[in-house]
Amino acid sequence: MKILVTGGAGFLGSRLIRALLDGKGPMPRVDKVVSADLAACPVKDARVESRVGSIADPLFVAAAVDADVDVIYHLAAVLSGQSEGEFDIGMQINVDATRALLEACRHLAKPPRLIFTSSLAVFGGPMPEVVPEDLVLMPQSSYGAEKAIGELLVGEYTRKGFVDGIVCRLPTISVRPGKPNSAASSFVSGIIREPLAGVPSECPVPVDTRLWISSPDLAVKNLVRAGALDGARLGLRRTLNLPGICVTAAEMLDSLERLGGKPARALVSLTDVPRIAAIVCSWPGAFDVSRPLALGFEADQSFDSIVKQYMEGLATA
Amino acid sequence: MKILVTGGAGFLGSRLIRALLDGKGPMPRVDKVVSADLAACPVKDARVESRVGSIADPLFVAAAVDADVDVIYHLAAVLSGQSEGEFDIGMQINVDATRALLEACRHLAKPPRLIFTSSLAVFGGPMPEVVPEDLVLMPQSSYGAEKAIGELLVGEYTRKGFVDGIVCRLPTISVRPGKPNSAASSFVSGIIREPLAGVPSECPVPVDTRLWISSPDLAVKNLVRAGALDGARLGLRRTLNLPGICVTAAEMLDSLERLGGKPARALVSLTDVPRIAAIVCSWPGAFDVSRPLALGFEADQSFDSIVKQYMEGLATA
Repeated sequence: MKILVTGGAGFLGSRLIRALLDGKGPMPRVDKVVSADLAACPVKDARVESRVGSIADPLFVAAAVDADVDVIYHLAAVLSGQSEGEFDIGMQINVDATRALLEACRHLAKPPRLIFTSSLAVFGGPMPEVVPEDLVLMPQSSYGAEKAIGELLVGEYTRKGFVDGIVCRLPTISVRPGKPNSAASSFVSGIIREPLAGVPSECPVPVDTRLWISSPDLAVKNLVRAGALDGARLGLRRTLNLPGICVTAAEMLDSLERLGGKPARALVSLTDVPRIAAIVCSWPGAFDVSRPLALGFEADQSFDSIVKQYMEGLATA
Repeated sequence: MKILVTGGAGFLGSRLIRALLDGKGPMPRVDKVVSADLAACPVKDARVESRVGSIADPLFVAAAVDADVDVIYHLAAVLSGQSEGEFDIGMQINVDATRALLEACRHLAKPPRLIFTSSLAVFGGPMPEVVPEDLVLMPQSSYGAEKAIGELLVGEYTRKGFVDGIVCRLPTISVRPGKPNSAASSFVSGIIREPLAGVPSECPVPVDTRLWISSPDLAVKNLVRAGALDGARLGLRRTLNLPGICVTAAEMLDSLERLGGKPARALVSLTDVPRIAAIVCSWPGAFDVSRPLALGFEADQSFDSIVKQYMEGLATA
């Protein structure tokens, strides 16, 4: 089994590569992983080959796709904050590079399984409390529009038999270690991570804002499952809303106080940032995930369990 | 008022230009119409300027968009049959040229109103008898996927304020005069037009297939209305399913027999063509059009009235 991961040097990409190599999930034995990213993949393993370059360059994309690749995870993307501010770069990376990748797959002898990570940002406008699988996409951000176009491209290339694609819409990942990033949802990790490190943090949305969340571990586990899934079980609907849990910002801060103490909670200030709130509050807070659950995908137990997972990670790091 | 019509030499485009120039609809007085198409616009009027070139050429597209254009109708497209057979050409015209047009509009001092004609081919998969406005798009044809991507582009460029876009999903137009075209739905005109001219014709889908139909006159009238519509009345939902009537192929053939006589009906043979049926039968048969009707858009009275309109057109031609 040979796997390509675009964005393989990133937070999620490198964790995914570790999980693919550890061989515990449903994926057959992995012999080689190619990481295509702007930087080398940090995973130290003889089976990992880093190819360093820009996914915006179609020649680099074509060179990243080996003729015998079995599974491709396309994680490389410009995040929501940057996409909104730099329209052309968002289109170039989130749309054009996705199309270039699909084109590189199109003429392979065996169409590879391709997992495209999408986002709940494809939704927007009026929507029910719990979003069903057949709700129209009405993105209210450039990132969401670009991901929605990527989903259609993956769907069409799959229908034509050019690839064997599955779209996985990821919940917002929390708690991400490290530094804030350019995603509008960066605070969803920041309001836990920073206070636990004794650093002040701001919650830029109203505290009753519902968020749809997955821990990094479970997001990675679900992506591994998607890579190994029998496509015939999906029928025409090749897009999956990966399971998450629905919590409000207030409930997240309650978890922080329970597990990190009152001083940690006191480091978070509530500061409405309309630019962020306009994007994040247009996203759904909960999904009907009965189909993905029946397919074996999993959700976290609670936000407390997510915070504990993060704190244990800190302790063993 | 200055208007650009891409596809202005085509059947719908030239009819639209005539309607815009006759000044009877809600559109303010039209001083000039630029037709951008592979051929010169057949409308003889001093206010019409033909610019001849390929919409696949971004330089031609940029040259077609004058700085003072008020309204753009983007009708140029590769139809469903050809898009399915020639994947790259479909993507180039239906996706890339649409994006090039939006880019040409992006830096104008005044964002023009842009009407993008889309199609019920954006739908597919399981769907209710009557399709609501918030149903997910799940195209089952290249044409449908390309139009769905075009819709997202128009939505995003509108949200960013680059254009003032409205997407009009047209019903299948029947009865088109002239010759069969490369649309999978070409037979929807053919099974009426050909027998009325004494020519045999084939119905390639099961006779109980539901079709969502508009006469050419009403489709044009609704497009004029869309060009003049106050965008604020649309809210976030910039896509309209234009009104049509729902008829089965059998009901169409009944109309043919009533108005054209038994000999005409006898010229239509029922010949299942799986390639055509697979596309057409994936389309919705009826839509909830309460919102467009409330906005002043109109539907035909009956399929008999549509056939009569066509026969009167023949008589006066």
